[in-house]
Amino acid sequence: MIVTCVHVSVKPENVDDFIKASTINHENSVKEPGNLRFDLLQLAENGTRFLLYEAYESEEAAAAHKDTSHYKTWRETVAPYMAEDRKGVRYNIVTPASKAGWGK
Amino acid sequence: MIVTCVHVSVKPENVDDFIKASTINHENSVKEPGNLRFDLLQLAENGTRFLLYEAYESEEAAAAHKDTSHYKTWRETVAPYMAEDRKGVRYNIVTPASKAGWGK
Repeated sequence: MIVTCVHVSVKPENVDDFIKASTINHENSVKEPGNLRFDLLQLAENGTRFLLYEAYESEEAAAAHKDTSHYKTWRETVAPYMAEDRKGVRYNIVTPASKAGWGK
Repeated sequence: MIVTCVHVSVKPENVDDFIKASTINHENSVKEPGNLRFDLLQLAENGTRFLLYEAYESEEAAAAHKDTSHYKTWRETVAPYMAEDRKGVRYNIVTPASKAGWGK
């Protein structure tokens, strides 16, 4: 099981657009069979910065996400909203150690 | 609902000790009534760096966590393991928008 934290900085005028597009992406991503979490968070001290917390049960499931139409639509839609390049940070999961612990 | 991402850097010789103490803290924290998530992650590219992903249904629930005996025990236990000060980053939750979406 792996987690990718995607750090996003959005142009101030596109914050609402980004939330709208990312909410659609969230709604579809959590339905993927290998998805464990797909949380969208907004930095408390700076509303133009977001964190996508994406947990998948395997490398294959994480890779499959990037092949979905909802991911591709999101990527194209949000491209003009980015204030800087997104940065993905990969983590290995220590706990919950079992898939059941992730509520799946 | 709020999330705190706690970034931790551990002395290399204390990585196993930190995981042990933090796993106990995880097991107790997920039982708190206001807890939504309490994930412990290890940075893929550097095994001495960790992320605690702590989601609570309210500010009060997050504050109550710091009053629990398991948190206080964890804090004291891991203090000598720290390579540098922990850094907590606060986020507001965009999605899942409902508590049910967090599996609770």
